[in-house]
Amino acid sequence: MSNAVFYHAGCSVCVSAEEQILNVLDNQKVNVEVVHFGDQKGRIPEAEQAGVKSVPALVIDGQVLHINFGASMEDVRKAVGA
Amino acid sequence: MSNAVFYHAGCSVCVSAEEQILNVLDNQKVNVEVVHFGDQKGRIPEAEQAGVKSVPALVIDGQVLHINFGASMEDVRKAVGA
Repeated sequence: MSNAVFYHAGCSVCVSAEEQILNVLDNQKVNVEVVHFGDQKGRIPEAEQAGVKSVPALVIDGQVLHINFGASMEDVRKAVGA
Repeated sequence: MSNAVFYHAGCSVCVSAEEQILNVLDNQKVNVEVVHFGDQKGRIPEAEQAGVKSVPALVIDGQVLHINFGASMEDVRKAVGA
């Protein structure tokens, strides 16, 4: 079983990517946690340490997949005041 | 059932993304075709028309997800002589 975290910030690109990718993942193969930085800004450091540069991003077993481009982590920090 | 095409060009970023994402897709929900532009340069126009700007990219039911960045389509065209 893989573990994945989908990090996003509520932007339209994020929401669209979330809908598309989460719909086709296999829940038997991967546990997916969705983290919205607007609600959980305390998770920003862990994402940056994993290598997340922008949102939306899907981190699967520690490997970062940046999916399209919604906003840089710098802009996410500004937006949520972190 | 969704239909998806994973477009790539054999680059290391492409191969890595392919392994990560295809492993966790649900084959009961999505049919995935893998297209390597080095082998199938005739598929470049359809990808560009779908909105693919770089590889690797996963197009799910016509919606493009650019996953990380391996190469621009311009560079893919140069590399494969298309």
